[in-house]
Amino acid sequence: MIKIRLIIAYDGTAYAGWQVQKIGLGVQQKVEEAFQKIFPSVKRIHGSSRTDTGVHALGMVAHVEIPKKEFRMTTQKLSLALNAHLPEDIRVVSASPASADFHARFDAAGKQYRYFVWNHPAMNPLLRHQAWHVPQTLDLAVMKRAAKHLIGKHDFKSFAANRSYEMESTVRTLFRCDIQKKGPLITFLIEGDGFLYKMCRGIAGTLVQIGRGKFTAEELHRMLAAKDRREAGMSAPAHGLVLWKVFYKKGKKGSDPVAEVEHEHRPA
Amino acid sequence: MIKIRLIIAYDGTAYAGWQVQKIGLGVQQKVEEAFQKIFPSVKRIHGSSRTDTGVHALGMVAHVEIPKKEFRMTTQKLSLALNAHLPEDIRVVSASPASADFHARFDAAGKQYRYFVWNHPAMNPLLRHQAWHVPQTLDLAVMKRAAKHLIGKHDFKSFAANRSYEMESTVRTLFRCDIQKKGPLITFLIEGDGFLYKMCRGIAGTLVQIGRGKFTAEELHRMLAAKDRREAGMSAPAHGLVLWKVFYKKGKKGSDPVAEVEHEHRPA
Repeated sequence: MIKIRLIIAYDGTAYAGWQVQKIGLGVQQKVEEAFQKIFPSVKRIHGSSRTDTGVHALGMVAHVEIPKKEFRMTTQKLSLALNAHLPEDIRVVSASPASADFHARFDAAGKQYRYFVWNHPAMNPLLRHQAWHVPQTLDLAVMKRAAKHLIGKHDFKSFAANRSYEMESTVRTLFRCDIQKKGPLITFLIEGDGFLYKMCRGIAGTLVQIGRGKFTAEELHRMLAAKDRREAGMSAPAHGLVLWKVFYKKGKKGSDPVAEVEHEHRPA
Repeated sequence: MIKIRLIIAYDGTAYAGWQVQKIGLGVQQKVEEAFQKIFPSVKRIHGSSRTDTGVHALGMVAHVEIPKKEFRMTTQKLSLALNAHLPEDIRVVSASPASADFHARFDAAGKQYRYFVWNHPAMNPLLRHQAWHVPQTLDLAVMKRAAKHLIGKHDFKSFAANRSYEMESTVRTLFRCDIQKKGPLITFLIEGDGFLYKMCRGIAGTLVQIGRGKFTAEELHRMLAAKDRREAGMSAPAHGLVLWKVFYKKGKKGSDPVAEVEHEHRPA
């Protein structure tokens, strides 16, 4: 078998998230169908993350195994061939050989998400499917101070959706939680070793509510300590969130860091 | 009558351009319909520019006259009221009082367009309706050198679509023709005192062809001198173009420069 590492980008608007779903269409399913048109024996591709319904990705990493005898093309040709079988809202950005023991999910050392807010009385029509419209005035200085409280190792249970986490730790480490503003566009850059279900959206929603004065920056400590979803703020809508990139340890199992293919999301 | 200056943003994907059309829907028509829901006597709004089918705008300027007795709200409320009657792909960004002799088209001193190219083997799915996908390698240094030749006062007839310009001058002055690259995203920033029909797209298409080696930078002089559309390069597709802002002379007739409301198009 030949193992291939893929970087996949998608507009999540039309999909029920990454993973193959019983109800609704997963991005994964479309990519698997494209593979099967070229390599009929390929059954499953393995993604690094499960993005939620409506969430976008520019740097989803996945791996797939292809029988050696079926694989008769360069990896560059493979991207082109897959894209010819994919809808325009899903693109294989790159395909490259990976070592036999590489695993897109288990080897991931961290992920970067970006959450976009358009903070102006009128929405930007060109961003209406890719940013959350917040027309109210936001206190950015307070939001930035609050964001710093989230950096480090914490139990993020209060920020994740109410799934059953009984068997599993809800402790995660955030490396970055930056807030940048350029004109009416506010970008949350959230980087960590892992993310609970809907955790990024819980963080973005709570920080926006702090910016509106509903909570103080210091209340984040209480929210974290409570380990109860009802204690934190709202969940920001899915369409503002983008899985930006996935990190792998340098040299480990031949899986290069994905940072090298960082995407510019759109015009500056 | 009260005169109002509007700044309008739209995703041009679904429209046959700005102007009211016999065939297809113009953005202007949707804005006029929204006005008529609030002020039944308003017949026409006057735009600063006629954008083409599929072209976007973030800073279209228009003016409208409303009978004094009908106008019983603040201009801030007016934006909100209009947006409530507009589809999500058209937004009134701002509405402000203008002096009685202000004219959105005749008083315009210049315009800035931006043209976006995604230069990567795979398209960015989040930009697929807002940037031209050019997968081939481009020589940016040559393109930048070529762009400089276009700055200044020239007859741009070779770059405009074959309309009848017999009665009208085809001489225009470009103030800027910058090319910026950030990752795979190339932005053409084109600013001038006026633009012929499809002139921006002719410039962007020709510069991309120069970047691919089809023409040399120096051949632009021959193209300009020829005053013949067949001598210049291709027309870039409409969906990569955005009317970014319209300039007015400072203080003139009370029409403030639009630069103050410059939009950030999307995430950096």
